[in-house]
Amino acid sequence: MSFKTLSAAAAIQLDKELMSTGAYSIDQLMELAGLAVAHAIYKQYPPSTTPNQASKTLVQDFTPSKLANRVVVLVGPGNNGGDGLVAARHLQLWGGYSPVLYYPKKSKSNQLYSSLLKQLQDLEVPEISSLEEVLAVIDSPQTSLIIDSLFGFSFKPPIRDPFQDLIKHLAHSHGKIAPIVSIDIPSGWDVENGPVDLDINPAMLVSLTAPKPCAAHFHNENRVHYLGGRFINKQIAVKYGLEEIIARYKGDDQVVKL
Amino acid sequence: MSFKTLSAAAAIQLDKELMSTGAYSIDQLMELAGLAVAHAIYKQYPPSTTPNQASKTLVQDFTPSKLANRVVVLVGPGNNGGDGLVAARHLQLWGGYSPVLYYPKKSKSNQLYSSLLKQLQDLEVPEISSLEEVLAVIDSPQTSLIIDSLFGFSFKPPIRDPFQDLIKHLAHSHGKIAPIVSIDIPSGWDVENGPVDLDINPAMLVSLTAPKPCAAHFHNENRVHYLGGRFINKQIAVKYGLEEIIARYKGDDQVVKL
Repeated sequence: MSFKTLSAAAAIQLDKELMSTGAYSIDQLMELAGLAVAHAIYKQYPPSTTPNQASKTLVQDFTPSKLANRVVVLVGPGNNGGDGLVAARHLQLWGGYSPVLYYPKKSKSNQLYSSLLKQLQDLEVPEISSLEEVLAVIDSPQTSLIIDSLFGFSFKPPIRDPFQDLIKHLAHSHGKIAPIVSIDIPSGWDVENGPVDLDINPAMLVSLTAPKPCAAHFHNENRVHYLGGRFINKQIAVKYGLEEIIARYKGDDQVVKL
Repeated sequence: MSFKTLSAAAAIQLDKELMSTGAYSIDQLMELAGLAVAHAIYKQYPPSTTPNQASKTLVQDFTPSKLANRVVVLVGPGNNGGDGLVAARHLQLWGGYSPVLYYPKKSKSNQLYSSLLKQLQDLEVPEISSLEEVLAVIDSPQTSLIIDSLFGFSFKPPIRDPFQDLIKHLAHSHGKIAPIVSIDIPSGWDVENGPVDLDINPAMLVSLTAPKPCAAHFHNENRVHYLGGRFINKQIAVKYGLEEIIARYKGDDQVVKL
């Protein structure tokens, strides 16, 4: 599998271009990106096939009525987190999934993220408030899927708390916890070079707009890779060398498996 | 087929609620609504089945390279028009359709509509500037589909020019032109009571959020009715009596055929 990738610098430039001369609002792009992530999850992990979909066992006390097919959504402080919030909303609206949020570092000044959170609160999506609790929920056999929307292509190390302990836990728990779906970048990975040291090992990656260079380190037989964010026009595709990859979308699908 | 409908007053109230306490932005809602319209069109009129998809005959001179499977998008001055602009963008991005716009009354102060238009211009979607030309294009056998995104649930008569002549033409041409897909309300119809006098006769209606009362006058054996705009939460559904109708959505579909 080979494809053109977008460097971190190019991805930042492309995003700027979409929102300046391209006239897209961040609300629009984030809605399409998060919706694409949710569609990719639905394709790869439809409600009927996730491990504990039929389970009605009640554990924990923050969401007694909604534990079947639990999806833990780990939300970072920036746009990658925003994509996760949108994906969580669509999964909840569709039914068959029970998203729970862990969103420890909320921006106080960003109206969009506050709005996305309010939309989830109105859908009664529960929120976990402490690191200890989220680690326990991650380890619980009641959890079917973990969405990693912590850091995206503009992430620069170091990872600060509580994300450092969270990512360490995810990395140490490989094979013992539910599959991880990373949005755009597996959090903790270097955007260009991939795994750095002790890194999480996602089962699935959803690249947005185009894969970033670290995605080249992602492929092996057990991993699945989707592309979403079907919104760039021909001129932008030509400018960034993305014509081949965006031509892979089929019909009216918002995502494509690479 | 029976279903709960939303009166014009209730639809206006629900929209206000989504954008105030519901914390949705108009950008988000319009993106989801327009995307749903495009998906419904794709389901009902996929590119391979539309009459002249294979035709490469060149007529008219405003879009010489893009006449196969032409979709004429009639864009009104308000939010219904905005939904049409978003739908046109997704159809163009997906390929297999060649949307052309007629958007005669552009708001000078609405940034969102200007942005949606710019996104289409960047995708090289052509625009027809005169009523005479759009009437000729509507009548052309090269046109496969007509999207009526002229007026929505907040429309109040009278219809002003150039829309009056346009709607008259559509009404008089019934059976002689391509199928019309109306967004939310068949333009010219009374939102509550349906057809008024000389009205257009759409082949397909895409209701958004919930059908409006006039949709009850829509059904007959040759017409198809879709619902899109899958974004209301349970409390709002309960408040407006929409639980049954939104429960009809399946899987991760953004639209459902009623």
